[in-house]
Amino acid sequence: MNIRQRIYEVIEPSAGHHHSKTFDIAIMWLIVLSVLEVILESYDSIKSEYGYYLDIFETISVVIFTVEYLLRLLTADLMYPNKSKLGAILAVMFSFFGIIDLAAVLPFYLPLIFPMDLRFVRILRLLRLFRILKLTRYNHSMQLVVDVVKDKKAELGITVFVTFLLMLLASAFMYFAEHESQPDKFPNIVASFWWAVTTLTTVGYGDVFPITNAGKLVASFMAILGIAVVALPTGILSSAFFDLTRNQKSEEAKTCPHCGKKVE
Amino acid sequence: MNIRQRIYEVIEPSAGHHHSKTFDIAIMWLIVLSVLEVILESYDSIKSEYGYYLDIFETISVVIFTVEYLLRLLTADLMYPNKSKLGAILAVMFSFFGIIDLAAVLPFYLPLIFPMDLRFVRILRLLRLFRILKLTRYNHSMQLVVDVVKDKKAELGITVFVTFLLMLLASAFMYFAEHESQPDKFPNIVASFWWAVTTLTTVGYGDVFPITNAGKLVASFMAILGIAVVALPTGILSSAFFDLTRNQKSEEAKTCPHCGKKVE
Amino acid sequence: MNIRQRIYEVIEPSAGHHHSKTFDIAIMWLIVLSVLEVILESYDSIKSEYGYYLDIFETISVVIFTVEYLLRLLTADLMYPNKSKLGAILAVMFSFFGIIDLAAVLPFYLPLIFPMDLRFVRILRLLRLFRILKLTRYNHSMQLVVDVVKDKKAELGITVFVTFLLMLLASAFMYFAEHESQPDKFPNIVASFWWAVTTLTTVGYGDVFPITNAGKLVASFMAILGIAVVALPTGILSSAFFDLTRNQKSEEAKTCPHCGKKVE
Amino acid sequence: MNIRQRIYEVIEPSAGHHHSKTFDIAIMWLIVLSVLEVILESYDSIKSEYGYYLDIFETISVVIFTVEYLLRLLTADLMYPNKSKLGAILAVMFSFFGIIDLAAVLPFYLPLIFPMDLRFVRILRLLRLFRILKLTRYNHSMQLVVDVVKDKKAELGITVFVTFLLMLLASAFMYFAEHESQPDKFPNIVASFWWAVTTLTTVGYGDVFPITNAGKLVASFMAILGIAVVALPTGILSSAFFDLTRNQKSEEAKTCPHCGKKVE
Repeated sequence: MNIRQRIYEVIEPSAGHHHSKTFDIAIMWLIVLSVLEVILESYDSIKSEYGYYLDIFETISVVIFTVEYLLRLLTADLMYPNKSKLGAILAVMFSFFGIIDLAAVLPFYLPLIFPMDLRFVRILRLLRLFRILKLTRYNHSMQLVVDVVKDKKAELGITVFVTFLLMLLASAFMYFAEHESQPDKFPNIVASFWWAVTTLTTVGYGDVFPITNAGKLVASFMAILGIAVVALPTGILSSAFFDLTRNQKSEEAKTCPHCGKKVE
Repeated sequence: MNIRQRIYEVIEPSAGHHHSKTFDIAIMWLIVLSVLEVILESYDSIKSEYGYYLDIFETISVVIFTVEYLLRLLTADLMYPNKSKLGAILAVMFSFFGIIDLAAVLPFYLPLIFPMDLRFVRILRLLRLFRILKLTRYNHSMQLVVDVVKDKKAELGITVFVTFLLMLLASAFMYFAEHESQPDKFPNIVASFWWAVTTLTTVGYGDVFPITNAGKLVASFMAILGIAVVALPTGILSSAFFDLTRNQKSEEAKTCPHCGKKVE
Repeated sequence: MNIRQRIYEVIEPSAGHHHSKTFDIAIMWLIVLSVLEVILESYDSIKSEYGYYLDIFETISVVIFTVEYLLRLLTADLMYPNKSKLGAILAVMFSFFGIIDLAAVLPFYLPLIFPMDLRFVRILRLLRLFRILKLTRYNHSMQLVVDVVKDKKAELGITVFVTFLLMLLASAFMYFAEHESQPDKFPNIVASFWWAVTTLTTVGYGDVFPITNAGKLVASFMAILGIAVVALPTGILSSAFFDLTRNQKSEEAKTCPHCGKKVE
Repeated sequence: MNIRQRIYEVIEPSAGHHHSKTFDIAIMWLIVLSVLEVILESYDSIKSEYGYYLDIFETISVVIFTVEYLLRLLTADLMYPNKSKLGAILAVMFSFFGIIDLAAVLPFYLPLIFPMDLRFVRILRLLRLFRILKLTRYNHSMQLVVDVVKDKKAELGITVFVTFLLMLLASAFMYFAEHESQPDKFPNIVASFWWAVTTLTTVGYGDVFPITNAGKLVASFMAILGIAVVALPTGILSSAFFDLTRNQKSEEAKTCPHCGKKVE
């Protein structure tokens, strides 16, 4: 067994190597610590005092994540034996976790190449958080939730789209109703969209709200529609959950009680 | 095949002409652009600088929409072959999309006939947005969502009606409880209705809220009822979704595996 | 047929007299007008100018409602033929609509007997609004919604009770966490309950909210539990709706397709 | 029958002694009164005037609760006949209600041993409220709700975990977007978490909200995701409720009407 095969077995949990789980747990802890580092760095007092040590830790962790990423690319053909070497590497790179892994380390290297403002891109480090979801790969319940959402993604998508149309329409009506009374709160239709979001999702911060009668009428319609906006996806997901759990049960017991043959 | 027949096949998607889809997509893009124009116009700086060009675009788009509307009326009898010529035209005019199409172009012509304030009626141009829903004719998921809502419209209507009664009752109680303490926030029962809407939908902007003990008691009952106001339509829709998806499945496999006869 | 029998047929819709529907509609319009009167009276300017006419209308409507109430008592034994005369009258008096009808007219007569502040008791006139629900007696959908809520009233009651316990507990924790920092907002546990209600129902007016870390922690737990407070009753109602609609369908088609016998 | 046996039958409802229910009700009333005492004590005016009597009542109630707790430990081996004496005592101590009972009386004795600030630990007295849930032992509906939540605890746990990840991610994005504009509202990522909680649960107090465009974009995504955060657990619970009630019904009637054999 060559070295690449052994590396693959260690870094890939499903390969079942006994070192694999240890490796997985070590990486998870590194992710948790690196998220903790981002949180700590956001405290001005901690950054000014311990910023040096946080930077060292960040550098080390990025190096480890980079090595792990490169090892995954190196062993890509073992994961997809039916693909060509390049095809396998691309498949790993453009997988969900592949994109996340790259996005999480790239911000560290970019400023070395192009001189740019580090602040914004460094947020991407937090994408590593999503890797924690990898842990749940084995998790039956997580799979069920994901299956349900996937199963109904067309219906949920339509709901989101119609919600967006409603928000746009309400923003425009609101702009016409409130612009004159509150030009600073509703300066244009796009800015009014912020009001539509906070109302239709029933968050209602209270930073923007109508004061004219026409505006209150529009807002009332929107707030009541907000109930439908919650009720529709909930109804879709409820029926999907029940459908999936029922299917699982019916698969368990499919034998006809009369003749012993399989029954649909 | 005469010219009217060909026009009908182009403008009506269900007629299946190969130019029909191209025409549909062109109209959709025109709608998107004309909505974008309304949004841009709402920016004071853009309007003052590019208002002239926006007006030209608006005129062109209205002319196109008007021509399309007239063509639909012209070919109305091809859509409803069983109706009289006048009956067909009226059927097209008073269909859901017929009303929307007219409402979206009429505001442009009205000020030419009656001198009136243009501002308010121009909002109606945004109704064109609803025409995007026509696209969903092709969409199975949208149809499912629409079917569910239609199937349960009686139950949902009752929920809305009872909610309205509750809001009216709560507004009156709130007016009696808070009018003396906050005469500016609760000047009369109709104005108190605004508070009832923001509370029962759980938006809670925070512009009006009770400060007396009696008012807080009424508001607490209302806020807790607000949960029922969300729970009831959600329950109705959930059961409808499950019912509809189950029916679809049972239609697929209705044959008894033993005797080949149809089974309910 | 005596006079009492005829009165009964007119005032009781289910008795099916041809004058019954006319009577019903007239009463409904009187209710709507009398509610409108309460709303108009809440406008200070209208009350000072037209208060005299509103009072006359109020007197007339109360007299009519009183007469109707007395006629119902008079014909009570025709409604409950199996009960004694007194038993039938009590059954009508303590029925849901009987209590509402009495509560709606009583506030008018009370001040004539005991000299008391009229303001508060007059709100009870609004209870007449509930009589509009009588219209829906024939309504199948309304019945379904009522059936579902009744069917699950034990489960819903438990949810409300546990929610109440949670609110009480959170109010106490919040009082201990915030009392020192905001003695005016959280003066005691009962006053803190107002915060608990606005948070757990996710209304969130923003008049009271925690500012200490301990308080924010308690509030975060409560806000997240607020999701469960919505999810539990919705789940209960969803399953009940589906159960009831399924039962209706299965009653329609219970015959076995093989032998024609009834099948469960 | 020895004295321990009789004590056990009285304090343990399931043992079915006729004094058991009386004992249970007495303890429940003592809990309600002791909770009332905590509430009354939170009023500064009541505490200063009647504090002496409240303290006496508190002492008496704690003594009774302590005695009851010790009696439960004393009769632990009757509850768990299969365990060793020590094992049974530990089983009672570390049961859900055992921990609550201890936590509710301990704060009274702790200051006698260690001199410490009484204020905070005294909140724990309120944990007694949870003992009211013991009453629901008799309640079939409560059991159903508990069963449903237990049945789906894995799925609900995943939802809570993903919600937590989303909140953390949004807090970090928000910190980067808003820190410069509102350093007092978003001083660090942990403080921004408070914003994430109030937004994702759609409470929206309005004490913290974004004012930059980047911040509003992040908040809009979060608010819309907040709908999913409500929809997912609701869907999970709906399907579980329906599943459980269906199983109960199918257990009632499982016999085939034709041959008398059991049918799935």
